Amino acid sequence: MIYSFKNDYSEIAHKKILERLVSCAHEQNIGYGLDSHTLNASKLIKKAMDYDNCDIHFITGGTQTNMLTISSFLKPYEAVISSNTGHINVHETGAIEGTGHKVVICDSFNGKILPEGIRNVIELHSDEHMVKPKMVYISNSTEIGTVYTKEEIVEIRKVCDEYGLYLFLDGARLASALCSEENDLSLNDLANLMDVFYIGGTKNGACIGEALVIINDSLKSEFRYQIKHRGALLAKGFFNAINFEVLFEDDLYFEIGRNVNKCSKILTEGLKDLGFDFMSDSSTNQIFPIFSNELIEQIKSDYLFEKWCSFDSDNTVIRLVTSFNTTEDVCNQFLEYISNRI
Amino acid sequence: MIYSFKNDYSEIAHKKILERLVSCAHEQNIGYGLDSHTLNASKLIKKAMDYDNCDIHFITGGTQTNMLTISSFLKPYEAVISSNTGHINVHETGAIEGTGHKVVICDSFNGKILPEGIRNVIELHSDEHMVKPKMVYISNSTEIGTVYTKEEIVEIRKVCDEYGLYLFLDGARLASALCSEENDLSLNDLANLMDVFYIGGTKNGACIGEALVIINDSLKSEFRYQIKHRGALLAKGFFNAINFEVLFEDDLYFEIGRNVNKCSKILTEGLKDLGFDFMSDSSTNQIFPIFSNELIEQIKSDYLFEKWCSFDSDNTVIRLVTSFNTTEDVCNQFLEYISNRI
Amino acid sequence: MIYSFKNDYSEIAHKKILERLVSCAHEQNIGYGLDSHTLNASKLIKKAMDYDNCDIHFITGGTQTNMLTISSFLKPYEAVISSNTGHINVHETGAIEGTGHKVVICDSFNGKILPEGIRNVIELHSDEHMVKPKMVYISNSTEIGTVYTKEEIVEIRKVCDEYGLYLFLDGARLASALCSEENDLSLNDLANLMDVFYIGGTKNGACIGEALVIINDSLKSEFRYQIKHRGALLAKGFFNAINFEVLFEDDLYFEIGRNVNKCSKILTEGLKDLGFDFMSDSSTNQIFPIFSNELIEQIKSDYLFEKWCSFDSDNTVIRLVTSFNTTEDVCNQFLEYISNRI
Amino acid sequence: MIYSFKNDYSEIAHKKILERLVSCAHEQNIGYGLDSHTLNASKLIKKAMDYDNCDIHFITGGTQTNMLTISSFLKPYEAVISSNTGHINVHETGAIEGTGHKVVICDSFNGKILPEGIRNVIELHSDEHMVKPKMVYISNSTEIGTVYTKEEIVEIRKVCDEYGLYLFLDGARLASALCSEENDLSLNDLANLMDVFYIGGTKNGACIGEALVIINDSLKSEFRYQIKHRGALLAKGFFNAINFEVLFEDDLYFEIGRNVNKCSKILTEGLKDLGFDFMSDSSTNQIFPIFSNELIEQIKSDYLFEKWCSFDSDNTVIRLVTSFNTTEDVCNQFLEYISNRI
Repeated sequence: MIYSFKNDYSEIAHKKILERLVSCAHEQNIGYGLDSHTLNASKLIKKAMDYDNCDIHFITGGTQTNMLTISSFLKPYEAVISSNTGHINVHETGAIEGTGHKVVICDSFNGKILPEGIRNVIELHSDEHMVKPKMVYISNSTEIGTVYTKEEIVEIRKVCDEYGLYLFLDGARLASALCSEENDLSLNDLANLMDVFYIGGTKNGACIGEALVIINDSLKSEFRYQIKHRGALLAKGFFNAINFEVLFEDDLYFEIGRNVNKCSKILTEGLKDLGFDFMSDSSTNQIFPIFSNELIEQIKSDYLFEKWCSFDSDNTVIRLVTSFNTTEDVCNQFLEYISNRI
Repeated sequence: MIYSFKNDYSEIAHKKILERLVSCAHEQNIGYGLDSHTLNASKLIKKAMDYDNCDIHFITGGTQTNMLTISSFLKPYEAVISSNTGHINVHETGAIEGTGHKVVICDSFNGKILPEGIRNVIELHSDEHMVKPKMVYISNSTEIGTVYTKEEIVEIRKVCDEYGLYLFLDGARLASALCSEENDLSLNDLANLMDVFYIGGTKNGACIGEALVIINDSLKSEFRYQIKHRGALLAKGFFNAINFEVLFEDDLYFEIGRNVNKCSKILTEGLKDLGFDFMSDSSTNQIFPIFSNELIEQIKSDYLFEKWCSFDSDNTVIRLVTSFNTTEDVCNQFLEYISNRI
Repeated sequence: MIYSFKNDYSEIAHKKILERLVSCAHEQNIGYGLDSHTLNASKLIKKAMDYDNCDIHFITGGTQTNMLTISSFLKPYEAVISSNTGHINVHETGAIEGTGHKVVICDSFNGKILPEGIRNVIELHSDEHMVKPKMVYISNSTEIGTVYTKEEIVEIRKVCDEYGLYLFLDGARLASALCSEENDLSLNDLANLMDVFYIGGTKNGACIGEALVIINDSLKSEFRYQIKHRGALLAKGFFNAINFEVLFEDDLYFEIGRNVNKCSKILTEGLKDLGFDFMSDSSTNQIFPIFSNELIEQIKSDYLFEKWCSFDSDNTVIRLVTSFNTTEDVCNQFLEYISNRI
Repeated sequence: MIYSFKNDYSEIAHKKILERLVSCAHEQNIGYGLDSHTLNASKLIKKAMDYDNCDIHFITGGTQTNMLTISSFLKPYEAVISSNTGHINVHETGAIEGTGHKVVICDSFNGKILPEGIRNVIELHSDEHMVKPKMVYISNSTEIGTVYTKEEIVEIRKVCDEYGLYLFLDGARLASALCSEENDLSLNDLANLMDVFYIGGTKNGACIGEALVIINDSLKSEFRYQIKHRGALLAKGFFNAINFEVLFEDDLYFEIGRNVNKCSKILTEGLKDLGFDFMSDSSTNQIFPIFSNELIEQIKSDYLFEKWCSFDSDNTVIRLVTSFNTTEDVCNQFLEYISNRI
């Protein structure tokens, strides 16, 4: 039987979510996110953040959330700063530009934006012949599995405050980031440090959905107009919200985060023991070992995964991703399978 | 207990869909709509249409599908023709204009666009100082519950062919339309008459989802780029597709359509027997009786529904909508309840 | 020799402007509107308005000015209210929608928006499923040659204040409007009543150019970014400004306004004396007499003009426009020419 | 008296153009570019190109021409490839992104795009999760004064053909490029090698205006709609065209190109003789000598120029630009002035 480490959105949803959907099947709800599930999911998330003065909106997917957020808060001539590897820069088919805004690249290290990089961008963009950078976009975990420390984000926040920039965190894989061994950030820290961020559901056990948290008071007004204008207001908003209710009722969100990290750690340590090198030091649920092309050929009919990039003529960086459904057994089987082939 | 006739998207999904989701919970699928469920749902829909030469894409909601379709197929200066009451004209918060395109209004009757209206629009838009109308947008059922006959659509198609216009049908409530007593159209007719149309899931028992059917060969190329560019490519495309698999496996899609119409007919006939007048002659699952404001006050704590528009100072047009979960019993109870109050 | 009453932009520019250009030919100026001509033109206009607290930007044409202004001041989901005949609604090839904003139509009479029409639009647009109207667009003179009285604009302003709407006046033909016999508005009144308006140059003797006057303090910030972002920041901004310097140095702007009105009045009265009817009561430089199709055929090789619209099967509304170069002689010759043919 | 080497758009226009404007002052013309001057200017340019099968449109400025061209020819998800220093990437305030399109950067050398760079971009953008690069944007002369050889452009064309890319040349300073000592390209070569390009007027003696030349048949249709939709259709199109008539009647366009290069060569050779180094090897009318900060302080009240970028802590790269009005005398005076201060 083939097993897929291709990504964390290969399976429909955590069984607790599906069970809840079944149990709510005969309920009638108000449409468009004005229902009691949406209200309750919002309350549960605020409680988990220990932060009340924010607006929470449930959006369907990551690219949609990014384009909605960026286009809602920037004026036409304003731009968003991203790392070179940022999802909005590379992997969204120009969705941000599609709403009229330039993505400006700044220096990063280990997938993480450097405060000095932001400063350089601002100083280069000095007059009205160039876009005006107004927002910094970061992802946690990053596109290469690394996580920001609290100090790193505090430093970025300082530069943002110095230059009047909004700080926006893409939390598509926030659960894994916050459950990482290297993490010292809490949801409450994010609420205190961000203008806006989102808590990803799609990649952490939900059928669909991202919870967008708007902290900055000046950004809250009439946001439901923005959602509808971008085609992102679900008729069945309650469906999206039920996913988050289940995720935040009994700590399931972080339980999943711990599980994916535990599994990826088994893989990481096992592969290191087998002598494999890695492209990045990931403590989250995406890991990037370097496999020989020969090995990849051997195993590709039994395991699915992404070829990330070429390492050299004989070797390739691959990506292995663990999900809410991944088990320790599956990881150990993979390691044994590999050990028999090297 | 309160019962809601507010709309057809108040409940999560048909129980058969939820059961299927549970039974697929441990499957692993390829992301972004490249999976076997998407392929199979596509095949089932093509079979139901008895039409093979088309591309089917599963999109999340109606406004998203409309903005994606219109913006993908029009050049910047081209416009879409709609009736005054068209969903894209009134109820999408400028989403179409948000992609850069004008919605041009044309004459309609009973919610349905008139061929002569299209002709007038085209003749008025004679040079490059005005937009160039290039697409006709119709809904079936319409926003006021009426349905197009085959002849009406054939006539519209002729005008479109005469002027080189695309014809796009919004089928958010297509099941109810095609199951209407007045209907003489089949899915196969639509495939033969439209350039592009969508088969609505959200309002016919699915958790989410609309199946966009592209018929015109010249519009098919690279459409997945368009989907992603507008933030509409779901990571869990298979989730959307499973909904349509269930709907099209055993005729469930039309079974639901027949049920909502049966229930709305009970309401219509019962209310007529009780002496109520209606704003439009609807044979589908949205009906528009005229209630006195006094009656509305009396019943509003027991039944939910939309106030559609004012009729006169003492009376209001309300909208009652039946859904996949609505039963004959519920409708008969409502009639009895009303009869006791007039 | 053929004479054209087709429009007021058939000739390059008033001779005083061309002379000034020649006399400035060897000057060197700073680019992009940061030069002394721009500063001086701005001062002269402020003096003519007797109003100092405003920002003035010189833009190249009417459609560009409209799309720049509307897109700069509205949020993505906000819309602009226009009369059905408004230039932005009909004659700008969807340029406003091209920047993402819907043009919402409201009731008008004699080409002029009615306060009650605005009120109706606002009340219909009640929630986030519809665009949020945020700006009222009016033209003075209107597209059919009529002018607003001060009282009419004061009433519109009141509705705007009541609902928090911006008021924007398109002054492509403002000189003719303010010099109309029916006019009781001054530039100072406009400064006190508008959030933003423009003083048209292209149709009043300039080579190119419109002077956009931003009154509302909250709309002034970073507007040069907006201009550049829409491709409207001229390298040779000083060229545009010189036109306005000449127009506002010695009252030339209004001298031209008086001339075009004097000439159109000769035409109007002469044609009335000859028994012609008119489509609208214009006191400005566009008049709309009704000519028989037979007469049009006879004269069309000697005079150029627009056929505005059909009046009945035998008669057509034509448009005659007088310009800064039109003379009384030319008008009297035309009248005599016509009188010989009826 | 202060002299400005700041740019080539400091002066209104070449005296022959101004004289012509005066002599045409009493003409009446058809509006919106449907006049005889536009037709004639088009013919003259076609003759100069020795190429007839193309459409020529007169647009007002460079950024407007770039945004119009790129947005007209690309589908929403398609992107344009530029060098890092490309004007559209840096100095247009996100105007390209404002029309919805990403600017993708590729490797360049000496300001010129490398064929291999294009190839790399295409190979990286492999699926619908990324934009689809569809156009290559180059400038001649480049932003740092260098020029493309015919062979270099032939090589770029080959890559474009291989991958189905449009090739678009920004000719804001095309006269200087084609008159450069290093140049081996003709207008006819450009007509044979480009899909679309523009011949800059603003920076070569015109009041305003760029002549956009569309070569590729598939791009010609309905372009006037695109112009109007972007607010770029001038009412007085004939004004723009008259500038180009004069420029192309008696070789004035190239006469100016030769003059600016002759003057910049005097400056280059003189400064080299005085021991100055340069940032780039420019054979066109922008040169980039490196001046000490001390010298800059001394001369800045007598000469105007741009500080381009810092060279080191004590020295700065400045930009000197010669224009249609620059004389040999002015250049020699500058050199003498400098020689007295070092």
